Amino acid sequence: MKIQLRFALLMFLFTTTVSLPMESRGDEGMYLFNDLPLQTLKQQHDFVPDAQWADDLRLSSVRFNSGGSGSFISSDGLVLTNHHVASDTLHKLSTSERNLIKDGYLAKTHSEELKTPDLELNQLVSIEDVTDRVNQAVKADASSDDAVKQRRSVIATIEEESFEKTGLRSDVVTLFGGAKYHLYRYKKYTDVRLVWAPETAAAFFGGDADNFEYPRFNMDATIMRVYEDGKPAKLENFLRWDSEPLREGELVFVSGNPGRTQRIFTVAALEYLRDDRLPYILDFLRRKEILMQQFGLEGTEQTRRARDELFGIQNARKAYTGMLAGLQDPQTFVTKTAREEQLLAKLQNNPEHQKLAAAWQTIAEIQDDKREMLKQTVSLRSELFDTAMQIVLLTSEDLKPNDQRLHEFTDASRESKLQSLLSEAPIYRDLELAKLSDEISRLTILRGAEDKLIQEILAGKGPRERAAALIEATKLDDVTFRKQLVEGGHAAVLESSDPMIQLARALESEYRRIRERNEEIEERERQAYAKVSQAVTAIEGTGGYPDATFTLRLAYGTVKGYSEDGEQIEPTTNFAGAYQHAAAHQGQTDFDLPESWMKAKSKVNMDTQLNFVCTADIIGGNSGSPVVNRKGELVGLIFDGNIQSLTSDYLYSDAQARAVSVSGVGIIEALRSIYDAGDLADSIGK
Amino acid sequence: MKIQLRFALLMFLFTTTVSLPMESRGDEGMYLFNDLPLQTLKQQHDFVPDAQWADDLRLSSVRFNSGGSGSFISSDGLVLTNHHVASDTLHKLSTSERNLIKDGYLAKTHSEELKTPDLELNQLVSIEDVTDRVNQAVKADASSDDAVKQRRSVIATIEEESFEKTGLRSDVVTLFGGAKYHLYRYKKYTDVRLVWAPETAAAFFGGDADNFEYPRFNMDATIMRVYEDGKPAKLENFLRWDSEPLREGELVFVSGNPGRTQRIFTVAALEYLRDDRLPYILDFLRRKEILMQQFGLEGTEQTRRARDELFGIQNARKAYTGMLAGLQDPQTFVTKTAREEQLLAKLQNNPEHQKLAAAWQTIAEIQDDKREMLKQTVSLRSELFDTAMQIVLLTSEDLKPNDQRLHEFTDASRESKLQSLLSEAPIYRDLELAKLSDEISRLTILRGAEDKLIQEILAGKGPRERAAALIEATKLDDVTFRKQLVEGGHAAVLESSDPMIQLARALESEYRRIRERNEEIEERERQAYAKVSQAVTAIEGTGGYPDATFTLRLAYGTVKGYSEDGEQIEPTTNFAGAYQHAAAHQGQTDFDLPESWMKAKSKVNMDTQLNFVCTADIIGGNSGSPVVNRKGELVGLIFDGNIQSLTSDYLYSDAQARAVSVSGVGIIEALRSIYDAGDLADSIGK
Repeated sequence: MKIQLRFALLMFLFTTTVSLPMESRGDEGMYLFNDLPLQTLKQQHDFVPDAQWADDLRLSSVRFNSGGSGSFISSDGLVLTNHHVASDTLHKLSTSERNLIKDGYLAKTHSEELKTPDLELNQLVSIEDVTDRVNQAVKADASSDDAVKQRRSVIATIEEESFEKTGLRSDVVTLFGGAKYHLYRYKKYTDVRLVWAPETAAAFFGGDADNFEYPRFNMDATIMRVYEDGKPAKLENFLRWDSEPLREGELVFVSGNPGRTQRIFTVAALEYLRDDRLPYILDFLRRKEILMQQFGLEGTEQTRRARDELFGIQNARKAYTGMLAGLQDPQTFVTKTAREEQLLAKLQNNPEHQKLAAAWQTIAEIQDDKREMLKQTVSLRSELFDTAMQIVLLTSEDLKPNDQRLHEFTDASRESKLQSLLSEAPIYRDLELAKLSDEISRLTILRGAEDKLIQEILAGKGPRERAAALIEATKLDDVTFRKQLVEGGHAAVLESSDPMIQLARALESEYRRIRERNEEIEERERQAYAKVSQAVTAIEGTGGYPDATFTLRLAYGTVKGYSEDGEQIEPTTNFAGAYQHAAAHQGQTDFDLPESWMKAKSKVNMDTQLNFVCTADIIGGNSGSPVVNRKGELVGLIFDGNIQSLTSDYLYSDAQARAVSVSGVGIIEALRSIYDAGDLADSIGK
Repeated sequence: MKIQLRFALLMFLFTTTVSLPMESRGDEGMYLFNDLPLQTLKQQHDFVPDAQWADDLRLSSVRFNSGGSGSFISSDGLVLTNHHVASDTLHKLSTSERNLIKDGYLAKTHSEELKTPDLELNQLVSIEDVTDRVNQAVKADASSDDAVKQRRSVIATIEEESFEKTGLRSDVVTLFGGAKYHLYRYKKYTDVRLVWAPETAAAFFGGDADNFEYPRFNMDATIMRVYEDGKPAKLENFLRWDSEPLREGELVFVSGNPGRTQRIFTVAALEYLRDDRLPYILDFLRRKEILMQQFGLEGTEQTRRARDELFGIQNARKAYTGMLAGLQDPQTFVTKTAREEQLLAKLQNNPEHQKLAAAWQTIAEIQDDKREMLKQTVSLRSELFDTAMQIVLLTSEDLKPNDQRLHEFTDASRESKLQSLLSEAPIYRDLELAKLSDEISRLTILRGAEDKLIQEILAGKGPRERAAALIEATKLDDVTFRKQLVEGGHAAVLESSDPMIQLARALESEYRRIRERNEEIEERERQAYAKVSQAVTAIEGTGGYPDATFTLRLAYGTVKGYSEDGEQIEPTTNFAGAYQHAAAHQGQTDFDLPESWMKAKSKVNMDTQLNFVCTADIIGGNSGSPVVNRKGELVGLIFDGNIQSLTSDYLYSDAQARAVSVSGVGIIEALRSIYDAGDLADSIGK
């Protein structure tokens, strides 16, 4: 699926991440590294990872702030991730003369490694339970508005103290629907350079048609290198590679950052997803997909400029379509309702538990609040307006004490925020014009043309004319100008005559109103799900894993085929299959292998394993996760889930759902036989 | 724009067509052939067409039931229209081995001319005013429900009597918002054969990017031939061709069938369009565009199957986007509101006129009813379900007396209905599956998953699974089976075990409820707009033209360039420009001229005029209309409007809005120098 998080993050900015322990089913589960399912692994797979195994794997794993996962794969700083996780960066490093997305890249020497403009990689160094401190800070009788503030305040304080003490990025993570709070400390890498990327034709072979399908034959891999003090970082923890291909039935582990699951969701919450939220998101995505396609029609350079975002949108559209299809299947609700009714019935057996049942009603009521808020927004999604709004908020939040700020503007988060705000990545005015025009038109529909703020946005002009005037006059595409505003602070923003800044200021209070209302709803939902979580624990016992939170988790499973429409799908593919697949789809551009592959055809060992599937429980955000064997050696690289896995957001099944990976041996074979990168291949795993 | 009607018709099935005389502005106007603007033409252009001129033009014009216009261009039955009007037919005549849309076609002999499966061409033979008879049949104190029935009944009777008497297709047309009713009699041609079509690469050169743009270089033309008794029809009326290119400033006329305008719309009605209807339609179109694109990704044959519909959708999406952009421009409402307020103020000067002002309030209230009905539907848009529903309705309506039937099932209309219902055009089950799955999912969102009818539609399955079961089991793609059902009548339908028929039966009563409610709303709207029409006539005087009704109209204008972004756009282009345009867009597939053009490059007279623009007032449905000069000679073929003309649905302007045509001399040049069709060129105009 290209299980990256970028678009999911964007869309679910205001969605609570909730989680609970559940009875495990098959290889279900995305486990916390400080609470691994040792007993289950022992029982089901006769495997007991020791502390060293888990620590090595955790410290060899990294999170990409652009919305994916990756791993350290050499002592001198090499990082492996997916091409589609790297594509945001490849796009930013490209120009009209140098199309890295299309043509790929190979640095033959360190000096040719290209510095990325705004990547941040996070290595999880430690985890600390801070649940008691957080809970003590939130008064039992606080209104949900007050609870939001109290919780925000104590979290900001904990993060700030940790940051001051250790210098490490410090994030408090809400787990199990607010039943637990853990402090995650990360070592950050911000000097990240591009070493090798294949062509999109190889990485995304089969295009949108093959996306989320299997069998696959994709080289969805890219290699970068982290630097410290201007030199390749010396790493203690990195993954060795298995030189053997995987066999059916082998036990494998995935260490990565699944973005968000909603398996705790009640039936009422799933109804809201099915009836309101997903249809709304899909209308939005289709709108943006057409917009970006249309922009690309203007010329080859426009196609290049729109390409990365377009592919992200298409990927999200296909994923959400599958999710909705699952929810529209009456059987999904039959299953979910039966489970829920069973649980609620059992709660009635104990007066203490009975009280918890009210949470289901609360959650049902909250869905109506969410329906009411669903279409409320003043965000004009475009680089330039987003930047303006971020600068307006940042300079305004800076005036407040640290513990009262919106979370992304606290002292502990500020550095990462500035990294993205002052990125040197190019901003294309023509693309911005297309996007901003469309957003003004979209907001005019959402809020109604008679709305006062809409009239302020339009300023008497049509959407396109107004967008053109704003983009013509703003200087926000200049990093120096952005820096001046940030450094000049609130006063500089108030004085600024930049029309985009002025527009963001005009919309600031409505933005805050909407956000506060959403956070208040989330708080009530968090409290209700904490009770649901309690109820489940009371009836089904402890153990298990919290819903995904874009933090490091361990999943496991076996290499295993599946049956589809009466046909047995084999779990692994090889290079020969790639060439056959291309030949079988002649005339369809997305199935043309790149020139490098066609030229190397006689050199490639056709039997080498290329892709494989396994039953591990993954989701968007796991893109780029390393797959390792019992010895902790890298055997693969997660890049997709099949179409049957699209419902695993709210319902895991291993009947057909599979995670799709590039084989480690396939990457080595491609580097050596196709990409003339033998030196790079030699340095991997050492 | 590809100003065809197909998709517009589909979308606006339930939209009232209303119309009123307006003060003419510039070359505004789509005039009735029995009420031509002789005085204005005399004053503005010193031209007075005589009766013979008008009759010849009318009788040389034809309407395509597939949603466009055309003209007779030879004594032996040749018909000229657009490639994009013919594309529905080209698609139906194509197979996986013979792709007429992509490759074009030329019949070298009569025997090679391909019989089209379900085209009906209408030649307007006479017009009769039946206003009094219709009005007398509708009781003054009738409820709007009753008024619908009374009006339907008298119209069915008039049509039936005329059909019995003359054997001609007889349609009563509602004009001037119900102020006038005219009986149109048509000679029908149903044996229509394909003679020549160019490649899509020539006809739609520049693709979606150039659609609605200018300058253009398109050969959007196709030639067919009508047959009678198995032989080429002998025609008395056909157009001679001017052998000279057009010059700037020349007066030209367009004779065609504009589909629908809404220039009479009040501000409240335009607000409904802006805020509700167009956003809803655009979400629908984008949804279908992505669906058809996705289907096409499955293979080259799937691309071919989806292509015609996809292009229709893209065309409609671009048109509606432009319409909405115009409505979202505050200046549009400033203009419309000012005119409306002025008119309402003037009405206050006269007690008789004062009463008419209430109509504006009524229309505003009706918009709320329309909002309520906007998303109510049980139509699962797909060939097979549509066919099932039509058969269920037909056999059920057949039980009623003629004058009580739904309009399309009266005796006078039945023949045309059967022609489409029993068409031999292929139905592709894979495409049907994609469409029906999507429709079931869409209806589930619109009506809610808990809706009883939705549960009946789903039958416990997910949308795709259910659609697959329906399509697997239905026999409706077999014309013989359809014929049996139609001939077996109501009893056969009741007994049928075909699951698609059973589904249509299950939805029939809800379909009728929705339709009746919509027709009742339309009736009230018609009555209100008749008063608006009266008011306008009272204040601004008589004369002018009614809103478009997909019936024959005459528009006029001059060949004239315009200014855009400070640049002067010349009114005509030539063949040299086409080759330059292709060269300037190398690497963009939609700008590749076909092989035939590249091969013929040295033979083509580069100076020959290819496309031109004029100020004539056209709209969707005018596609394929002949453009003639003062002598009544064909000089061009309407195929598009520029992007500035997209708002002319509700507001005409000749500042920049232009109709775009293929030059007659360009067609001849292409036939002779590119398509090796000299014999065909020789027979044109003779």
